[in-house]
Amino acid sequence: MAGTLYLEDLAPGARFTSAEHALDAAQIVDFAKRFDPQPFHLDAEAAKSTFFQGLAASGWHTAAITMRLLVESGLPLADGVIGSGGEIQWPRPTRPGDVLHVESEVVEVIPSRSRPERGMVVVKSETLNQHGEVCQRLTTKLVVSRRPAS
Amino acid sequence: MAGTLYLEDLAPGARFTSAEHALDAAQIVDFAKRFDPQPFHLDAEAAKSTFFQGLAASGWHTAAITMRLLVESGLPLADGVIGSGGEIQWPRPTRPGDVLHVESEVVEVIPSRSRPERGMVVVKSETLNQHGEVCQRLTTKLVVSRRPAS
Repeated sequence: MAGTLYLEDLAPGARFTSAEHALDAAQIVDFAKRFDPQPFHLDAEAAKSTFFQGLAASGWHTAAITMRLLVESGLPLADGVIGSGGEIQWPRPTRPGDVLHVESEVVEVIPSRSRPERGMVVVKSETLNQHGEVCQRLTTKLVVSRRPAS
Repeated sequence: MAGTLYLEDLAPGARFTSAEHALDAAQIVDFAKRFDPQPFHLDAEAAKSTFFQGLAASGWHTAAITMRLLVESGLPLADGVIGSGGEIQWPRPTRPGDVLHVESEVVEVIPSRSRPERGMVVVKSETLNQHGEVCQRLTTKLVVSRRPAS
């Protein structure tokens, strides 16, 4: 893992920006076939007459891309990005041709009382397209390790 | 889509149970390579010394499998399963060999004031393994159509 940050390196207000991911129709359809086989995620023509009025990525695909961006560049934690859960919103569809990146901010750092070697960190992550529009809002509680004694 | 249910067919307390999905290590590693490339999702040996103490599926993989189960059998909505967001928790890891199914319950039905043709439905979905243990809790707000005038 590329990250170097431990619990004591994080404070509310710390911000991180990920690399970019370019999404295309083939990726959207591939994910949908595996996990969300509905017309508006599978077929551009069939999607026109649906709620989405055109091909849109599964929200869970947007979430999965967001996770990859966080793991590889967006949240450089030494022991990895381990979430226990969170809140997710998709205020607008993710579309073919979108170029996504993730902007994250630390909201809260909560040392564990029972587990001195780690704590919880609340992080808000927005997944934005190339127009700066928010396609996903995610607030997660992450398990983050303290720096091991050297 | 196989579903037949519209907004007026749903009421708080209505329950639905999906088919099952058998998860194995190959699926866990395949998803992780695509979307969550961290040692505890990629390699059983490397996973032993991590927080998860063994190979575990990405939480987003559990979410994606849950979506497939909901779409194909777990939530038979006529116009599909369209979520605007929700809350998600992973109280325990999903492991190789787990056989998952989803149990859902309608919590609230909210007709739209501005859009008479549809409404929002709040659904709680638990993803359980073969031991009846909850691997994921998901509460989603779904966009659900009213039955079209015939």
